[in-house]
Amino acid sequence: MNVREISWSGGRGLVVVFAKGDEFMAGMKNLASTYQLSGASFSGIGAFSTSLLGFFDRSRMEYVKIPVDEQVEVLTLAGNIALNEGKPKIHPHVVLGKIDGSTVGGHILEAHVWPTLEVIIHETPTTLQRHTDPETGLALLNI
Amino acid sequence: MNVREISWSGGRGLVVVFAKGDEFMAGMKNLASTYQLSGASFSGIGAFSTSLLGFFDRSRMEYVKIPVDEQVEVLTLAGNIALNEGKPKIHPHVVLGKIDGSTVGGHILEAHVWPTLEVIIHETPTTLQRHTDPETGLALLNI
Amino acid sequence: MNVREISWSGGRGLVVVFAKGDEFMAGMKNLASTYQLSGASFSGIGAFSTSLLGFFDRSRMEYVKIPVDEQVEVLTLAGNIALNEGKPKIHPHVVLGKIDGSTVGGHILEAHVWPTLEVIIHETPTTLQRHTDPETGLALLNI
Repeated sequence: MNVREISWSGGRGLVVVFAKGDEFMAGMKNLASTYQLSGASFSGIGAFSTSLLGFFDRSRMEYVKIPVDEQVEVLTLAGNIALNEGKPKIHPHVVLGKIDGSTVGGHILEAHVWPTLEVIIHETPTTLQRHTDPETGLALLNI
Repeated sequence: MNVREISWSGGRGLVVVFAKGDEFMAGMKNLASTYQLSGASFSGIGAFSTSLLGFFDRSRMEYVKIPVDEQVEVLTLAGNIALNEGKPKIHPHVVLGKIDGSTVGGHILEAHVWPTLEVIIHETPTTLQRHTDPETGLALLNI
Repeated sequence: MNVREISWSGGRGLVVVFAKGDEFMAGMKNLASTYQLSGASFSGIGAFSTSLLGFFDRSRMEYVKIPVDEQVEVLTLAGNIALNEGKPKIHPHVVLGKIDGSTVGGHILEAHVWPTLEVIIHETPTTLQRHTDPETGLALLNI
């Protein structure tokens, strides 16, 4: 376990409202570049019309794809932004709710917003870095 | 996608502990009025004795009701507070856990706390506004 | 419902990255002691190799155990740290995602990280206290 102490004073925040049809990952990458975010956590709620989730399969060391081809509530969206090879990388997990209240979740690979997604971003006043882990090939946070 | 930059410095916080029997939506509305909250995000954990969730049905443009008539853990409560027609509106999503670990989730319409619900509210140092979207009839965040 | 107003200015933050094989509860207790955390909220994402969840059974006034003996994504980790009888107590709830996207959740009793768990801790600039509730035997937040 590694720990880095930070101070929240001086950290910027962003309130982000995605509109109908916006794709989440493209929007977040765009935002991270525009605001030069090199360290941040975020959370959000809203709804998706279609989404593609991922589960990291330890036996194959790759993401299994979980398509969700129906309108769902975004019950929780949680994640962070860190630099990987000099570029901001978005790491988002989500729990989605269906019309009967049942849930499905995973890592977001792609997600289309409808009618809205309300995200609050909390910048950390220090850069967060990822480095590739040789065993898994994943870019893990390295602080 | 619309974005508004804020500064967290100077923002108030509220630690809120709901007691046995408290109804969540009534408590949050009361709190938002008392503290004149016009922009905030919140998160929480705890447990509900009975709850009524909603799923926004795109084909009917209204909330389908999902009753949960059993004791559940509140695994995640996430949402925000914004002004709608001059009054604070609470927008809460939740994932609930049952005795076998299975989950159910949605938008909270009504929820009764037992034995506790621990909520942390983070005020945004700027007012957030909602406006009615003509297509859905929903009051969407408009920043 | 009890409420305490706080100011976020001056609050410390901690970015914590758990490594392969770390046990979550032991790590958090260790961290709370090292940094003398007497009031904080936290959130996180990552993955567990095995975990043991709990559901507080109202009829028996004790935790029912829910073993999760497979690799899962940590879709949301949410909780807080408060003092109980002078020692920091960790109160964590979690939603886990399986390889098919199905979810399971509860109170974390024990959880082994693989390959990572990324947690952000937000200190409240005031001590939070728990007191034992006679009816349930649970240490509830008392502000």
